[in-house]
Amino acid sequence: MATASIMSTEGSDSRAHRPFMSDEGLESIHRAEAYDQFGNKSEVNIVGEVPLTIKVDGQELVTLMTLGSRPELLVLGYLRNQTLFEHPGEIKSIIVDWDRELAEVETQHGGGVTGVDTSKRIVTTGCGQGTILSCTLDKLYQHRLPEIQIRQSDIYNVLGKIKDYNKTYRAAGSVHGCGLCKDGEVLTFVEDVGRHNAMDTISGEMWLQDIDGSDKIFYTTGRLTSEIVMKSALMGIPVLVSRNGTTHMGFELAQELGVTLIARAKSRHFVALNTRDMIFDAIPS
Amino acid sequence: MATASIMSTEGSDSRAHRPFMSDEGLESIHRAEAYDQFGNKSEVNIVGEVPLTIKVDGQELVTLMTLGSRPELLVLGYLRNQTLFEHPGEIKSIIVDWDRELAEVETQHGGGVTGVDTSKRIVTTGCGQGTILSCTLDKLYQHRLPEIQIRQSDIYNVLGKIKDYNKTYRAAGSVHGCGLCKDGEVLTFVEDVGRHNAMDTISGEMWLQDIDGSDKIFYTTGRLTSEIVMKSALMGIPVLVSRNGTTHMGFELAQELGVTLIARAKSRHFVALNTRDMIFDAIPS
Repeated sequence: MATASIMSTEGSDSRAHRPFMSDEGLESIHRAEAYDQFGNKSEVNIVGEVPLTIKVDGQELVTLMTLGSRPELLVLGYLRNQTLFEHPGEIKSIIVDWDRELAEVETQHGGGVTGVDTSKRIVTTGCGQGTILSCTLDKLYQHRLPEIQIRQSDIYNVLGKIKDYNKTYRAAGSVHGCGLCKDGEVLTFVEDVGRHNAMDTISGEMWLQDIDGSDKIFYTTGRLTSEIVMKSALMGIPVLVSRNGTTHMGFELAQELGVTLIARAKSRHFVALNTRDMIFDAIPS
Repeated sequence: MATASIMSTEGSDSRAHRPFMSDEGLESIHRAEAYDQFGNKSEVNIVGEVPLTIKVDGQELVTLMTLGSRPELLVLGYLRNQTLFEHPGEIKSIIVDWDRELAEVETQHGGGVTGVDTSKRIVTTGCGQGTILSCTLDKLYQHRLPEIQIRQSDIYNVLGKIKDYNKTYRAAGSVHGCGLCKDGEVLTFVEDVGRHNAMDTISGEMWLQDIDGSDKIFYTTGRLTSEIVMKSALMGIPVLVSRNGTTHMGFELAQELGVTLIARAKSRHFVALNTRDMIFDAIPS
């Protein structure tokens, strides 16, 4: 394993200190021997899946199973989406060491995740196997999202562009992908074996760069479940798009928090729930 | 909510006491208003997703987000697959109360999940968002599975029959399904919003009825990830089948534990990894 290269993250925004972070993204694709239905042996691509244990000021918090492509942002976004910190300035550093399968987080105050009962977990559904700390739910209702206009054409533009970004999926399958989008363009796309990880990674990137979510669309593979809706609200993003469906709790939360769900979106078809203000400017003929 | 009806579970096998369990399965499908791509409003089916908090002798363990169709077996299987108990006889009762979103487990000894560090969790990948307690991993290597013959024709028979079982999926999408199969037949099929739940539910049923896994095939939607392979080994099942792929860790564990992975299985196509003893008795023309 190469020595950790440290990526300086000082930015132009001086309102918030940014964490000092390593740069330990892994290559994602492995080879394995397999037989096909004719009994022929060949090599196939399979994606990586590695454990990453997050420690905060020496206190073990959780172990995530991840593709490992952007571990520092994953950790940052995980901390954000679990509402364990209010702003990235509270984090002093995030150093990933794959030899120990460890992400060591140092906080500015050195007190770990104080006052948070990290033993009470909700194991959530959906492709990605996430976990929401029960304390997150209390904070969620502070996050009702503003009304925005959603254009049908933007949704179609995003769906058309995903194939330019999901490279790991195209090479080896078996990963989820999430994209942060605006005005029909994909701003950032992350793949991970767990889509909660991919979503958290984008959340970490947004938090680090102080990117506002209110004018964005969030694309994800997999279903629009309660956890995905919750994260979207925490990230300030009012529109979720997926080729898959939603659950009743996902839908109820979407209504309470102000998230529009564009579900079962394939080609020109979709099912739009909790639409709020949607402009049908690209109705198929 | 109807008064809990108590299902007696005394069976003919007296070697192990069986838990006293409620019978609180929920109906799974809801309706929601939605717009399609033409701007037309209609009602669509969406699946339920409800929290179920498991308490063991009054101690809160975890909250699962579930479809809720077979909650008692889910709880039993969860406890088994987390290796918190050695045999079902240690469980005195499992009573589900949806008004409180609670599954109360009483053990015979009354001491909860003693000696287990339930704070150390691994958040796993895969459709279904499960969690494996780190203590489970230690016990896993006791579970290397015996060599069995796998027939290609059994795999095709199973794949052909799934459509007769996945009723919730056909009505509303957005659920995963798992099936326990033998000799090309589906013995039991469970759907849930999380496939780790569906798998745990089948595990609970097998544990309760003392069903041996060594001559079975396990079908699941979603990917064959490390968690799914681990559960398969714990359940004694040596063959996993899915339409989706696998991950590198899933594959490595499969090799170490003796699980054959039949991945990307669609129609007559599949990719078979760690095949051990496989009979190609139905090669497509």
